Amino acid sequence: MKVSIVTIGDEILIGQIVDTNSAWIAQRLNEIGLQVQKIYSISDAEEEIVRTLKRAGELTDIVLITGGLGPTNDDITKVTLAKIFNDTLVRDEKVLQHVKDLFLKKGRKTINHLNEQQADLPSKCKVLLNPIGTAMGMWFEENNKHFISMPGVPREMKGMMTDCVLPTLQSKFSKGVFLHRTILTQGVPESILAEKLFDWENALPKPIKLAYLPSENRVRLRLSVKGEDEFLLNEMLRREVEKLNAFIPEHIYGEEKDRVEQRVGDLLLKNNSTVATAESCTGGYLAHLISSIPGCSKYFRGSVLAYDNKIKQGLLNVKLDSLTEHGAVSEQVVKEMAISVKQLMGVDYALSTSGIAGPSGGSEKKPVGTVWTAIAGPNGVKAVKHQLGSERLSNIKRSASAVLLDFLHQLESDDKKIE
Amino acid sequence: MKVSIVTIGDEILIGQIVDTNSAWIAQRLNEIGLQVQKIYSISDAEEEIVRTLKRAGELTDIVLITGGLGPTNDDITKVTLAKIFNDTLVRDEKVLQHVKDLFLKKGRKTINHLNEQQADLPSKCKVLLNPIGTAMGMWFEENNKHFISMPGVPREMKGMMTDCVLPTLQSKFSKGVFLHRTILTQGVPESILAEKLFDWENALPKPIKLAYLPSENRVRLRLSVKGEDEFLLNEMLRREVEKLNAFIPEHIYGEEKDRVEQRVGDLLLKNNSTVATAESCTGGYLAHLISSIPGCSKYFRGSVLAYDNKIKQGLLNVKLDSLTEHGAVSEQVVKEMAISVKQLMGVDYALSTSGIAGPSGGSEKKPVGTVWTAIAGPNGVKAVKHQLGSERLSNIKRSASAVLLDFLHQLESDDKKIE
Repeated sequence: MKVSIVTIGDEILIGQIVDTNSAWIAQRLNEIGLQVQKIYSISDAEEEIVRTLKRAGELTDIVLITGGLGPTNDDITKVTLAKIFNDTLVRDEKVLQHVKDLFLKKGRKTINHLNEQQADLPSKCKVLLNPIGTAMGMWFEENNKHFISMPGVPREMKGMMTDCVLPTLQSKFSKGVFLHRTILTQGVPESILAEKLFDWENALPKPIKLAYLPSENRVRLRLSVKGEDEFLLNEMLRREVEKLNAFIPEHIYGEEKDRVEQRVGDLLLKNNSTVATAESCTGGYLAHLISSIPGCSKYFRGSVLAYDNKIKQGLLNVKLDSLTEHGAVSEQVVKEMAISVKQLMGVDYALSTSGIAGPSGGSEKKPVGTVWTAIAGPNGVKAVKHQLGSERLSNIKRSASAVLLDFLHQLESDDKKIE
Repeated sequence: MKVSIVTIGDEILIGQIVDTNSAWIAQRLNEIGLQVQKIYSISDAEEEIVRTLKRAGELTDIVLITGGLGPTNDDITKVTLAKIFNDTLVRDEKVLQHVKDLFLKKGRKTINHLNEQQADLPSKCKVLLNPIGTAMGMWFEENNKHFISMPGVPREMKGMMTDCVLPTLQSKFSKGVFLHRTILTQGVPESILAEKLFDWENALPKPIKLAYLPSENRVRLRLSVKGEDEFLLNEMLRREVEKLNAFIPEHIYGEEKDRVEQRVGDLLLKNNSTVATAESCTGGYLAHLISSIPGCSKYFRGSVLAYDNKIKQGLLNVKLDSLTEHGAVSEQVVKEMAISVKQLMGVDYALSTSGIAGPSGGSEKKPVGTVWTAIAGPNGVKAVKHQLGSERLSNIKRSASAVLLDFLHQLESDDKKIE
């Protein structure tokens, strides 16, 4: 079965929002063995909706539609679908009661005609209940083609997919799985990696598809395979990942499903260790990464964000001499920050950052993008210098990721020593 | 001139990455008066690329293509374009030298055949230089239709767009602007808002298009207008926004181009005030929002992230009595945190957060999603309780946004008092 996604809404075509729905839908479909062939993003214009749905229905069997189901005049997906299927809208009393209940919950005793209209639905479709909103979903079937319309609000779409659309698609059409494994490499450009992997790549079993996904300093290698026997396919992937590990052990640092901060957390938990951060240029983002993991309170004590040099001195005991002699962005200062916060919070490990995130504040000797990071651990403190780019937000995120990755490597090596 | 975007890459169709390129491109095109009609995301498959580019060329005049230009086997955009335009690849010596220089910079003296092949380019296209990568852009023109192929790596695509594609499109095709203003409202559902705005909406000048964009607790109202005279169009929008303000003054809290953290920063700068944060459940994310604004070091001193209750006591002087009597997630504790960090960092304002982000840690009395936030300012301290959802990351982000928005309102009211 071929699947396409059609997202409807001017906000995507003018770049006001990024379409995150499609990626989420694609992932969920892959889990039940369905593969997205094409994604269309189009405007809230009748002619465009009609043309695109016709085309999507020619090329694919299942068309998942999001957006354009609100109560206001700019949303026309429902009436356009009714036109396409030569259908009329009929008041659904159950849905009307549901809409009234939703408003009652919010303390509103009456609803207006726009809300009432949300209960007018095409007679030929199966109505998909939206437990948290007034926009219902609609499932049309004609000549073995399925058109499934859902709200564009991510929370509402996800609820409808999870509760109803995915289980139905799975029971009707799913005949297997579409599996991916993504191996993370660093320190070698895409082209050199491809050369090193030439023999391995050529010997890959036919069903496995390989993709190189480069990003800053890293290349992710994705192996994909589609089929019916999940166990056999997983085994096939496992063998190839094992071979890959033997080919380029020095360049592999993990697998994508493991977020670095998750693996850091797992290792800290395992060894009953604790961590804290002292941040300057990362401005709290490093702490945010660590604390985004559920259960982190078991190993993450806290952080001191010392944006101001006075705070670096007062709270983090950075020496005035170090600041005046080396500057805030220096090996000396970043080491003192790490050592101090380690002691202050009574933790086993401490990470610190200090740099020039930009866009201003750079000098000839220390241009924008100069960042020092340090890790203090049971065996002393080590600092690293990074030379990043000119974009502030990218510099903030890259420095936080860099020190976290270094920390992961240190934890792995400490973990081996313990074992 | 009609424009479409075609993004090529399996990673989008399996949901491995979210397509952020299209939104960025759409925004830049709007700035020069060009409007995106349609966005296609397709896989790295020859048949699909050929079919989609043909179709996009029928429906639109300018087709912007991203992705599939890497040196490895899975990237086939370049050879497919050559096929479509009956063209052959020719070695470009200048590009070859550029590729060699790039590798030299990274300390590699030789390049392999995959890198060399990056210098083989279709003879009929105009080559667009990629200063930071080995994948060049290609601009084909045939029968007044333009096909512009660019790398999928966002940094490389953005550079090529800014340096070359946008200026060329502007000088050739741009005849005006496509303007948007998005007014932020809160406290009233979409349908009620539409009812309140009925008269205003009906009286809108014909060229102005209105959209309602609902999200959690808020509705954004977008006014869009397209035309040649930027001054007149801006004036038209300004008048309507003024009328809108008069219609629903109690529900409007700002405009989208101003990010809350930017406006907070502007007001702090204007009044020469400073801020710090004391965080628990937001885990550094609040500090990250504030410090994401360039120049924030002029007003942002720092933060204490006290995840652990011992840190709350030791660094933030939260009383043991308060913690045992009221618990860490309480009005009393969040107020003490704000007052203490205000004093500690010597700032005019301090924000604090304490809550149960989840997924675990909730109780009957304080379920997951219970968050207290406080703001300490020149006139004392005020705390607010929020009852959020069950998703950890969403709770972290929503609490940080909530206290920042409250803070903006307080700054605005303090600012008026000063004036």
